[in-house]
Amino acid sequence: MLPPAIADYLETHRDENLRLLMELLRFPTLSTGPDEPTRACAAWLAGKLRAMGFSVELAPAGAGKPNVIASAVVDPSKPTLLIYEHYDVQPPEPLNEWLSDPFEPVIRDGAIYARGSDDDKGPLAAYLACLGAYKAVTGTFPVNIKCFFEGQEEIGSPGLEGFFLEHADELAADAAVISDSGFFADDVPSITYALRGLVYAEITVTGPSADIHSGSHGGAITNPVNALARILTAAQDADGRVTLPGFYDDILPPAPEELADWARLPHDDAAYAASMGVGALGGGERGLPSLQRRWSRPTFDANGIVGGYTGPGAKTIIPAKASAKVSMRLVPNQRPEKIADSLRRFLADNTPPGVQVSLQFHSNSRPVLLATDSPAMTAAKDALADVFGRKPVMIRGGGSVPVTELIQRILGLDSVLLGFGLPGNNVHSPNEHFPLDQYHRAALCLATFLANFAQGGGHGR
Amino acid sequence: MLPPAIADYLETHRDENLRLLMELLRFPTLSTGPDEPTRACAAWLAGKLRAMGFSVELAPAGAGKPNVIASAVVDPSKPTLLIYEHYDVQPPEPLNEWLSDPFEPVIRDGAIYARGSDDDKGPLAAYLACLGAYKAVTGTFPVNIKCFFEGQEEIGSPGLEGFFLEHADELAADAAVISDSGFFADDVPSITYALRGLVYAEITVTGPSADIHSGSHGGAITNPVNALARILTAAQDADGRVTLPGFYDDILPPAPEELADWARLPHDDAAYAASMGVGALGGGERGLPSLQRRWSRPTFDANGIVGGYTGPGAKTIIPAKASAKVSMRLVPNQRPEKIADSLRRFLADNTPPGVQVSLQFHSNSRPVLLATDSPAMTAAKDALADVFGRKPVMIRGGGSVPVTELIQRILGLDSVLLGFGLPGNNVHSPNEHFPLDQYHRAALCLATFLANFAQGGGHGR
Repeated sequence: MLPPAIADYLETHRDENLRLLMELLRFPTLSTGPDEPTRACAAWLAGKLRAMGFSVELAPAGAGKPNVIASAVVDPSKPTLLIYEHYDVQPPEPLNEWLSDPFEPVIRDGAIYARGSDDDKGPLAAYLACLGAYKAVTGTFPVNIKCFFEGQEEIGSPGLEGFFLEHADELAADAAVISDSGFFADDVPSITYALRGLVYAEITVTGPSADIHSGSHGGAITNPVNALARILTAAQDADGRVTLPGFYDDILPPAPEELADWARLPHDDAAYAASMGVGALGGGERGLPSLQRRWSRPTFDANGIVGGYTGPGAKTIIPAKASAKVSMRLVPNQRPEKIADSLRRFLADNTPPGVQVSLQFHSNSRPVLLATDSPAMTAAKDALADVFGRKPVMIRGGGSVPVTELIQRILGLDSVLLGFGLPGNNVHSPNEHFPLDQYHRAALCLATFLANFAQGGGHGR
Repeated sequence: MLPPAIADYLETHRDENLRLLMELLRFPTLSTGPDEPTRACAAWLAGKLRAMGFSVELAPAGAGKPNVIASAVVDPSKPTLLIYEHYDVQPPEPLNEWLSDPFEPVIRDGAIYARGSDDDKGPLAAYLACLGAYKAVTGTFPVNIKCFFEGQEEIGSPGLEGFFLEHADELAADAAVISDSGFFADDVPSITYALRGLVYAEITVTGPSADIHSGSHGGAITNPVNALARILTAAQDADGRVTLPGFYDDILPPAPEELADWARLPHDDAAYAASMGVGALGGGERGLPSLQRRWSRPTFDANGIVGGYTGPGAKTIIPAKASAKVSMRLVPNQRPEKIADSLRRFLADNTPPGVQVSLQFHSNSRPVLLATDSPAMTAAKDALADVFGRKPVMIRGGGSVPVTELIQRILGLDSVLLGFGLPGNNVHSPNEHFPLDQYHRAALCLATFLANFAQGGGHGR
């Protein structure tokens, strides 16, 4: 039960909390970009946390962008909650498709538009608002709080495993909560209990030593673009099954009850397809329901491709090279190292004569399956039901939040994935946005979760 | 037989003819560049031709760079020869790879280095030198001469078909000669008697209305890059045969004697592969000799591809779209219109659910097969044998010279492709060059060709 004074405070400080979010959104914290904006944003976060009594440390993973680690011990006999969010964002490109500057938030139709508004600065600001309300009203927090705000989640959290191993003591807690997921549908509050893993690689096919004339040499010289297309195509059979050797060997299939639960979710393939702007679904294994294809089946997707002449008009060349970024989403129990090795062998077996293929790995993360019956989980379910008026559904996610698996494996905690994103918010796309009402309710829900957790969750340390 | 006085004149005027070539090379006549240098060069060419008694007209095709049309009627009872050359050049980029200024010719190791020295200003200047020798020694030419010097061959001769239809009378002749091709090898004089045609198209695959998260949606939404790769791959079977419906139906296969002649040419696949920087040949129809694959078999090559994220590192998206430029080289008797239509039908049959495919055509040209037994052809063969000491080989070319087909179709003339380029001259590349000896022998050979043609070729008009 949330103390009414906290709810009142959040209600009367909506404008202030909105300004807080807008300030956070103005930092162009591209994990692929220069260091300066992320350093400035980390300092801003540290300032906000210190003002609430946290001790704060800024510590990069390896040579990367800084992570913000904060701790507020209010009573050693109380449980400790670890809050994970990330403050870096996806690149905003293509810029010409944005209706407003991605780093100058504007409000349109009751939503705030900016890169990161949903993923993940909106939820991060909601935590700051929630903690600020407790501090202002009660002078303290209901439990001990640790925050870990990451600076390079969107590039696959490089070096985070080593960082966790080094900082395991600092990050130790009784429970962990992450709000980097979303509702199953606009009015369907949800808790995510499993995520897919990821192997992200770049395949480069090299042919002739320079671009050569496609008239003089076409038909006799292997074309790197054609060869790359053939490699990508060979990775899936006609039924959409991935052909990498041993690819499906280790998969732990969902329990029959899970599949039955998913079948009852308010989901309609045609409406989903329409919301993505496509006329029909596709891309995965033929014959399986789309939720299974997104949640409990692995994929092989090209995320980008480039080679040869891409300017206006025509240039008659056989390109010297072509490359593609490809990613494989993995499901519980697949192991990234094994899949990476399988990709290596697949390429060796599928390189045509006359070209060379090289492979570079950009990131790796393991799939994760979380306990659904912990005290923190109960606290979260009740908070969602209270604030959104509907018992949450238990869902899986198709994406990867690598930190979830590290928190599980290294800190020994099954995180509660208590997310507030909505399906139509254009995460990773132009015109990303977050409804203001969802933002304010997120802050209220997180405050309720904290209260519930303090009352029933954890067991002291 | 060349009058000895012409040969003597060319021999004693080598310095003057070299200066002529150097002047021509100094004009940066980029067909992709500003108009001023091409206008200046066209005026310079007109001046040289008028000084030899030609009437000259400068006439652009459409809004393009000027073409130079010149005519010298010496005796209406004699045959008329149409000489085609182009005075525009490829862009010189990458400039940093040139050892000297591409538009300030220098002589190194017996060759002249400059953009256009081989393609096509060296041969053009050799015509000027040859005609100048006749004019100086005999006061006239052995036959009536028309010149057509094009200003935008290197960008695919836009508007040239309409231009030919408009100027058909002015360009009418008994025979045509084009020196925009080359020797099969350094010491192997050659006449090219067939060229491939071209259909150049752009295929765009459109999927979701924006780039979407490959984790959330991967497996349920058709990926445009994967779909495009699958389309490109489906266009050729495992043996490299193009699968477009009816693609091979109209092909006129080479005669058995042609194939036997090609098999006798001094060609080595391993040396050819090494010269292209590849370890093995590939790309065409399995089992056919590489010269057949380059000369008498059609192709399906991607010239460029782009889609999704192509920056550094990783971005986990299913791209909204992807596109590829593809070209099909065509062989005698294939028709571009029919192949374009076949591509359209192929795409309709190979579009997976969940994406849309659109098609744009950039250019079209017909293959050409030229008579090898005309009086002009005999005149050319004998001239090459006289000057280079070796009977020329008859070869095909894999590229497309659209004007050859227009001269055949609109003017009714089978051109003689009497080229002097050498394989190692870096045509279209940095450090393009033309050996001085080859230049002077080209002028001598063209003068011999003119004499031979006057003595046996043509039949008056």
